[in-house]
Amino acid sequence: MAKLIDGKQISADIRAELHEQIKQWMAKGNRAPQLTAILIGDDPASKTYVAVKMKAAAEVGIVSKTERFEADITEEKLLARIEALNQDDSVDGILVMLPVPGHINERKVCNSVSCDKDVDGLNERNAGRLYMGTDTLIPCTALAVQELIKRSQIETIGKNVVVVGCSKHAGLPIAMLLHAEGANDMCATVTICHKFTPPEELARFCRSADIIVTATGVPGLIRGDMIKEGAAVIDVGITRVADPATGKAKLVGDVDFEDARKVAGHITPVPGGVGPMTVAMLMKNTFIVAKNQAIKRAQN
Amino acid sequence: MAKLIDGKQISADIRAELHEQIKQWMAKGNRAPQLTAILIGDDPASKTYVAVKMKAAAEVGIVSKTERFEADITEEKLLARIEALNQDDSVDGILVMLPVPGHINERKVCNSVSCDKDVDGLNERNAGRLYMGTDTLIPCTALAVQELIKRSQIETIGKNVVVVGCSKHAGLPIAMLLHAEGANDMCATVTICHKFTPPEELARFCRSADIIVTATGVPGLIRGDMIKEGAAVIDVGITRVADPATGKAKLVGDVDFEDARKVAGHITPVPGGVGPMTVAMLMKNTFIVAKNQAIKRAQN
Repeated sequence: MAKLIDGKQISADIRAELHEQIKQWMAKGNRAPQLTAILIGDDPASKTYVAVKMKAAAEVGIVSKTERFEADITEEKLLARIEALNQDDSVDGILVMLPVPGHINERKVCNSVSCDKDVDGLNERNAGRLYMGTDTLIPCTALAVQELIKRSQIETIGKNVVVVGCSKHAGLPIAMLLHAEGANDMCATVTICHKFTPPEELARFCRSADIIVTATGVPGLIRGDMIKEGAAVIDVGITRVADPATGKAKLVGDVDFEDARKVAGHITPVPGGVGPMTVAMLMKNTFIVAKNQAIKRAQN
Repeated sequence: MAKLIDGKQISADIRAELHEQIKQWMAKGNRAPQLTAILIGDDPASKTYVAVKMKAAAEVGIVSKTERFEADITEEKLLARIEALNQDDSVDGILVMLPVPGHINERKVCNSVSCDKDVDGLNERNAGRLYMGTDTLIPCTALAVQELIKRSQIETIGKNVVVVGCSKHAGLPIAMLLHAEGANDMCATVTICHKFTPPEELARFCRSADIIVTATGVPGLIRGDMIKEGAAVIDVGITRVADPATGKAKLVGDVDFEDARKVAGHITPVPGGVGPMTVAMLMKNTFIVAKNQAIKRAQN
């Protein structure tokens, strides 16, 4: 039976560590780190996510603020507001809740967030730095996966990793972190599978993987018979489905959990795996930004 | 016996096409595309490469210039010169010959080349755009591999590709292009192997690959028995070794060519495969820059 990777507990540990670090940092005379979220329209999922993030921020000692805009805000106005936040010394991290309404160019918005304050790591220049192996702000989901692997003491050097899904905010940055060399990188052989990978090939790649990271949003995609005995399974997927027994909505990942846990060595549950860790890594990124901004202010 | 992918011939075809396109474009009243190379010190390999590139430029109708600097030029002076070229409307493509001397920060130099004139695709922002799937200037080696695959009508959608080596100018951009979705991308399942991949795993991945792209500079790394019958083998490696028969220097790739050609379906020779194609793609990138810059000038 697989060892459960308890994302809730690990995330609580990280937030407790951060809380302590922030307290010590503030005791030296620094102001509290600050995080501003931008929420456009009233997508219920975005509202829930932002509330969860703001709560976590308060817990670790990060001052946060959510700026709400109507769904019909113009791109121009939104970009102007982001630029004002970029220039505002009282703001550290800036987080634009995605997706933005269809009339707004999402890529333009992500690129408008100053690289220095881009806690989501979605500015194209930060993506390029991740790709180049330069120290930078990295998407929280990728950091979450990396941290879960590290804290579970799962070996990665020269191991086979399959990343299923190649989105720019999850699969691809995960593939970047896990294949790369260096102190914080993982040196694994990485296979990037996606919707064009034939099912039988996906199964074959998964069966020879030491670590499977799946980020597709396709429930039940990864079955128990696709997992090598003892492999680690990290499930980034999170989809709302109706429970066949009760008819109530519930959250599931990409992995057939009950089946997979019989074979895997380590497994993350959904919910309670990668999700809470992503929030913890957002707090970590915000504190990194706060420290860098404080140094910048002091040097000016 | 494998079909030879004749990079020399395909590159000549592309250069002939480009020559025609540039002629037509100039007939509309545009000035000739321009390419400026920066050569620091006197590395003999860089000198040879730059000469080959300048010759190809002349052939297709690109005006080129090589600016030479002493090996002890300061980083500050070099960056100032690049900035002047960025601002110079008579300059289209800018190409800094790498490696630069050790006292100069190579990443800083690559990032200093305007994204719009970065014909080598090595500015971190252009790397980020490649990663994000945004239209941008892409490293010539990656374009060369993509074009060889396309012109040889080798299928890629849902096929298994192994990329051996993950350098920022070859392996990694190749992996980006080959896995991605879209009109010019290849939709393949991509496995990134590198020096941490155990030899037996490298062999196993290669044996199930429909396409092997190797870019390591390790002669003989890819043996015939690692290749699936009928697979395509693209050899980006190029290393100068002593010929055991004659004692003379000769160029070899990563692939044991004589062995591999008996098994592979398609194979590139070294020299005469990827090398000449890289030069052709540099010309293509320069023409793209020239056209974009002309539009920019016209709009200002």
